[in-house]
Amino acid sequence: MEGYKLFLAFLASALLLGVLSVAFVLVWVLNYREGLGWNGDLPEFNWHPLLIITGFVFIQGIAIIVYRLPWTWKCSKFLMKLIHAGLHTVALTLAIISLVAVFDFHNFKKIPNMYSLHSWIGLTAVILYALQLVLGYMVYLLPFAPTSLRTAVMPIHTYSGLLIFGAGIATALMGITEKLFFALTEKTVPYSQSPKEAIFVNVLGVLIVAYGAVILWIATRPHWKRPLEHVFVTHQRIGEGFGEDDCHSPDLEFNSDAAARKRNPKSDETGQRSTM
Amino acid sequence: MEGYKLFLAFLASALLLGVLSVAFVLVWVLNYREGLGWNGDLPEFNWHPLLIITGFVFIQGIAIIVYRLPWTWKCSKFLMKLIHAGLHTVALTLAIISLVAVFDFHNFKKIPNMYSLHSWIGLTAVILYALQLVLGYMVYLLPFAPTSLRTAVMPIHTYSGLLIFGAGIATALMGITEKLFFALTEKTVPYSQSPKEAIFVNVLGVLIVAYGAVILWIATRPHWKRPLEHVFVTHQRIGEGFGEDDCHSPDLEFNSDAAARKRNPKSDETGQRSTM
Repeated sequence: MEGYKLFLAFLASALLLGVLSVAFVLVWVLNYREGLGWNGDLPEFNWHPLLIITGFVFIQGIAIIVYRLPWTWKCSKFLMKLIHAGLHTVALTLAIISLVAVFDFHNFKKIPNMYSLHSWIGLTAVILYALQLVLGYMVYLLPFAPTSLRTAVMPIHTYSGLLIFGAGIATALMGITEKLFFALTEKTVPYSQSPKEAIFVNVLGVLIVAYGAVILWIATRPHWKRPLEHVFVTHQRIGEGFGEDDCHSPDLEFNSDAAARKRNPKSDETGQRSTM
Repeated sequence: MEGYKLFLAFLASALLLGVLSVAFVLVWVLNYREGLGWNGDLPEFNWHPLLIITGFVFIQGIAIIVYRLPWTWKCSKFLMKLIHAGLHTVALTLAIISLVAVFDFHNFKKIPNMYSLHSWIGLTAVILYALQLVLGYMVYLLPFAPTSLRTAVMPIHTYSGLLIFGAGIATALMGITEKLFFALTEKTVPYSQSPKEAIFVNVLGVLIVAYGAVILWIATRPHWKRPLEHVFVTHQRIGEGFGEDDCHSPDLEFNSDAAARKRNPKSDETGQRSTM
C-alpha cells in the first residue's frame, strides 16, 4: 500500500477521535445530565445523543472505510461486503432506537415532534440511510443484479454514502446547539456564560467534525482503495459464499490475480468502484 | 462532454437552489426580522446570515465548480484560475464583513463572543478558508511554485476546499437553529409551535443542504472535469498573462493540444488535478 504509515496514522486518528466522541457524549449524559433510563423523561431522551453519535457517526464512519484496511485485502470481497453492510445495519438500528427515544420523550412531555430544522434534516438523513442500505443489499450483496446495474449505481452509492455521513454530522451539530440552549439557561448558568458543560460539549462537537474530516480523507484517497486485482478474483467467489479460506495469504491472492487478469484484463467489477 | 445534458440539469438546479437560498434569507431578514442597517443592533446582525449565505455558501459553491463549465474549456487555465480565485476572494470578503457585523452586534448588546459551537466551527472554517485562499494564490496563481509542489498540494487543496464548503453549510444550519430559538419564543409564537417564520426558515435550511449536495455532486464527477488536453496547453501560457485570445475556438485548442501532447505526452500539470 502506498503511504502505509500515513494511512495508519489517519486510521489511528479516526479511531481516537471516534472513541473520544462516544466517551464525551457518555460523560455528558451521565455526568452533566440526567443519566440514562427508559421512563419517557430526560433519561430516555439522553439515549438520543448517545446512540446517534455511537451509531450514526462513529460506526457509520468505520463502515465507510472498512474496505480501506489493507490487512483485509486478502479476504474475499464478499466477506468484506458482509462486514460493510453489517456495520451499517448496526448503525441504522442504533439510529432508529435513538429516534424512538426522542419521539417517546416528546410525546411523554407533550412537546411537538418534527418542528426543528434539526429534526427535518436528521429524519431525512436516517430515511435516506435506510434506503441506501436496502438498495445496497439488493444491488451488491444479493447475487441478482446484473454487472451493468452494479456499475451504474456505484458512483451514486458512494456519493450518497458520504453525503448522508456528512448530513449526519451536521445534524448532530444542530442537535448539540439545540440541547445546550435548552439546558443551559438563566436558571443555572446560561450557555453564553460558557459554563464547564458548554465548553465540554463544544469540544464534543469539534471532535465529531474532526472525526468526519479524517474519515472523508481516508475514504477519498484513490491510492488507499482496495486494489482492483483482489476485486476481480473475489468477484468470482461471490456466488460461493464464504468459509475457512475467505482470507488468503496475500502472495497467493496476487498470483492468482495476475493470472486472472491475464485471462480477462477488463474485469467487469472495475466500474463498480468508487469514483470519489 | 460526457453527459452534457445531465450536467446542464445539475448546473441549473445548483443555480436555482443557490439563488433561492439567497432570496429566502433576504425575505427572512427584511420581512420576518428587523431589516438591514449598520447601527449595532439587530438590523446590523441581519447582515450576518445574508452575507454568509450569499458569500460563504452560494458564491463559494459557484467558485468550486467554475472549472467544470464546458464553455470555459476553450479559455486559458490562467484566466479560469483568476475567476476561481476571484470568486473565492469575493466570498471571503463577504464572510469577513458578516463576521464584523455579528461581533459588532454582540459588543453593542454586551453579549459574549465565541461561546457557541456555531461560532467555534464557523470562525475556524473562515480562518481555514482564508489560509486556503492565500496558499492557493501562492502555489497555483503566482508563477514561483515548482510543479512538484503544485502536484503534491493539489489533493489537499481540493479536499480542504470541499471540506470547508461542507463545514460552512453545517455552520449555517447551526446558525439558523440558534437564531430561530432566540427569535421565536413564548413572547410571540415559539419555534415548537411552527409559526410561518419557522417553516419558512427551515425550508431555507433544506435549500442550503440541497445546494451543497448538488455542488458536491458536480465537483466530484470525474467525467465533468476540465479535460487534461486544455490544461497542458494553457499551462504553457501561464507566464504570458492573458489578453484578447484567452478564449480560443475549441477546434484550434484541441489541435494544438494534440500536437503538444505528441511532443511531451507526460504533461507535468497532470498531477495537479483533483483526485476527489
